[in-house]
Amino acid sequence: MTKPANNLSIDAKRLWNDLMETARIGGTARGGIRRLTLSEEDRRVRDWFKAECEKLGCTVQVDEVGNMFATRPGRDGTLPPIAMGSHLDTQPTGGKFDGVLGVLAGLECLRTLHAADYETHAPIMLVNWTNEEGSRFAPAMLGSGVHAGVFDRAYADSRLDSEGTSFAHAIEAISYRGDVPAGATRIGAMFELHIEQGPILEAEGDTIGVVTGVQGMRWYDVEIGGRESHAGSTPMAMRRDALPAAAALVLAVQGAARACPGAVATVGTIAVHPGSRNVIPGAASLSVDLRHPDAGALDGIEAAIEQALAAICTEQGVSGTLRRIWDSPPVPFDPRCLASVRHAAGSLGYRMREITSGAGHDAAYIARVAPTAMIFVPCAGGLSHNEAEEASFGDCGAGAQVLLRAVLDYDRRLAEGRQEESP
Amino acid sequence: MTKPANNLSIDAKRLWNDLMETARIGGTARGGIRRLTLSEEDRRVRDWFKAECEKLGCTVQVDEVGNMFATRPGRDGTLPPIAMGSHLDTQPTGGKFDGVLGVLAGLECLRTLHAADYETHAPIMLVNWTNEEGSRFAPAMLGSGVHAGVFDRAYADSRLDSEGTSFAHAIEAISYRGDVPAGATRIGAMFELHIEQGPILEAEGDTIGVVTGVQGMRWYDVEIGGRESHAGSTPMAMRRDALPAAAALVLAVQGAARACPGAVATVGTIAVHPGSRNVIPGAASLSVDLRHPDAGALDGIEAAIEQALAAICTEQGVSGTLRRIWDSPPVPFDPRCLASVRHAAGSLGYRMREITSGAGHDAAYIARVAPTAMIFVPCAGGLSHNEAEEASFGDCGAGAQVLLRAVLDYDRRLAEGRQEESP
Repeated sequence: MTKPANNLSIDAKRLWNDLMETARIGGTARGGIRRLTLSEEDRRVRDWFKAECEKLGCTVQVDEVGNMFATRPGRDGTLPPIAMGSHLDTQPTGGKFDGVLGVLAGLECLRTLHAADYETHAPIMLVNWTNEEGSRFAPAMLGSGVHAGVFDRAYADSRLDSEGTSFAHAIEAISYRGDVPAGATRIGAMFELHIEQGPILEAEGDTIGVVTGVQGMRWYDVEIGGRESHAGSTPMAMRRDALPAAAALVLAVQGAARACPGAVATVGTIAVHPGSRNVIPGAASLSVDLRHPDAGALDGIEAAIEQALAAICTEQGVSGTLRRIWDSPPVPFDPRCLASVRHAAGSLGYRMREITSGAGHDAAYIARVAPTAMIFVPCAGGLSHNEAEEASFGDCGAGAQVLLRAVLDYDRRLAEGRQEESP
Repeated sequence: MTKPANNLSIDAKRLWNDLMETARIGGTARGGIRRLTLSEEDRRVRDWFKAECEKLGCTVQVDEVGNMFATRPGRDGTLPPIAMGSHLDTQPTGGKFDGVLGVLAGLECLRTLHAADYETHAPIMLVNWTNEEGSRFAPAMLGSGVHAGVFDRAYADSRLDSEGTSFAHAIEAISYRGDVPAGATRIGAMFELHIEQGPILEAEGDTIGVVTGVQGMRWYDVEIGGRESHAGSTPMAMRRDALPAAAALVLAVQGAARACPGAVATVGTIAVHPGSRNVIPGAASLSVDLRHPDAGALDGIEAAIEQALAAICTEQGVSGTLRRIWDSPPVPFDPRCLASVRHAAGSLGYRMREITSGAGHDAAYIARVAPTAMIFVPCAGGLSHNEAEEASFGDCGAGAQVLLRAVLDYDRRLAEGRQEESP
């Protein structure tokens, strides 16, 4: 019954209907979704997901931290499945597409394979990763992190929400503690479709982002120490004002990132002490978020910021320290998976560009244990983590179509022995 | 019994003893004073003040807002008194000298005149102004402001402290509602001795500051509007980040003040929205405190800041507004009073310099209704509004000596007809 994979077309309308139907589970008045991980709403969407997958003949297994794996058999049952997946949980005032698109587009791919009675070489798997958002239980990407061995199950179980409820309690309360040991599920490769959550594709008129990796991220805390004194009676030359030093550092951070292609750097928080209109600030604290796909570039920017801070402190007569508090190394995606994504988008004639993910995703952790890539589609104005988050009907369909074709291309290469077998 | 005024010497040790004795009323463990206006501690120090003045034969009158006027008769009872004065209330964690020195040095002058049985031409008056600090009841300089007609009594009565107690209730609770109508007390001139509350005299090795006026002060609110977006997925070139714009304005404010001799400008508060480590700030708010002795210079700096803001907004792709929310014009002190201060300090051989007050003082309001001047003495490190505030034994004595000699010089000029009579 196998037909050529190139003829398989997903049904964009059916995908859109699934997006809109599940958006009612936790739907907000402003058109967004509030579906916190392991909440009653999460249970409802999980039940829906399981039922829809089973309707397509898939077996659905759940692991100890609630990750859901729906598997459609392939010709060679010894091969690890080629996975698609993302997450169905949302931010407290999240949108309808972040995460959800990647899962429902995968479901649409399964529907399409099922309707065509298409038999793949390797099994095909659809995954709903638990607690990607991290907004109920920190940290983010907890389910995929446990699967990849970044965290262990006990750590996940111990996470508390703001009301003191543990992850362990919450997962049992919605009966989604599965019996599959965390990390035991084999994954041959994974493709994650996601909205970009940034403005690049829309601004450049591209439909598909071939995501070559996830940027490295480093977080810093900066403390500036000056001398609190009277705004009226302290001459300019005798001040040790912490704020102009902090301000100069903000501009130095911006300048260092602007000077390095592909870099982004953000000072998202700033506070001065005592914070009174007529008192010269004696201290200032700020945060720096620095990202680049290349660790060497991150080192260079970090050094530039450190140098700038030293010069600023001398100029302003204050002290300053820059402390790195978090370092998430860059994640390059798998060249074979990327080749399949490029092939898929190219053969479908979509305008595409290579892009780096600025945000973290489940795929970043899964890349540690399986060949992985991501596909981005545009979202309006780059807006995400917002009830007004929007992706177009056409772009969602294009993303799902590219996802299916990339998976089938990867599978065909496996079958033809052009892909070495995945771990 | 009149002796030449040049021979009258204050007793620095007696002054210091008064400073240390009254510092116990509301004294803190860290060596400061907590003597909030119209509190029980304020009542106790007022009672002490009244008793000490009466011991010297002075009559003490209290007006409707609690201002205390102790008068020592002169030869010509028709003349309005030459006043000395400041305030006995303190900041919540205030020091031992701010305000207190001006009152107790005046008391020491009265003690010296009394001991010498010296008869002045005009009556001499010592004033304790109510609520200079404004830290229990805003605004500051309330008592002198009511006396000068800047505020009316009803306004003063209506002020509430942080616990909801009104000024009216508090003044009656400590029985310091006097029967003298506010503003009715005649003042021929006023001299206020005060610690500098800044670092200039100490840094330059001067003992006496001849305070030529109080700087004009303007307060501004600045609002910057950008676009909140994802710190990871928004390229530098597509950002509308409110914080670098705010930072550039902080440096522009500093630069504009540095470029104008005599100017000081301070950004004491800054806040960004949403204030999250990985979100590009969509908005920033900051305050600007700008001071200069000349209104024209203030206009020039204000224009420079406005121009800088416009250029910054263009460069950073954000919107910005600068709104002036308060304007206190410069107060020049009286040339006749200043001549007496200069004469006094010069004849005593103290190193002196002209200085402008960066802070507000009761004298700034009294200057609206009477010839007024101030005398500054150094304070350690420019520190004030702090329990560690410190002025030396020698400097306190020097200040009191200059105060007495300036008052007597002013009085002598009056007697010799070289001073036109005050209003």
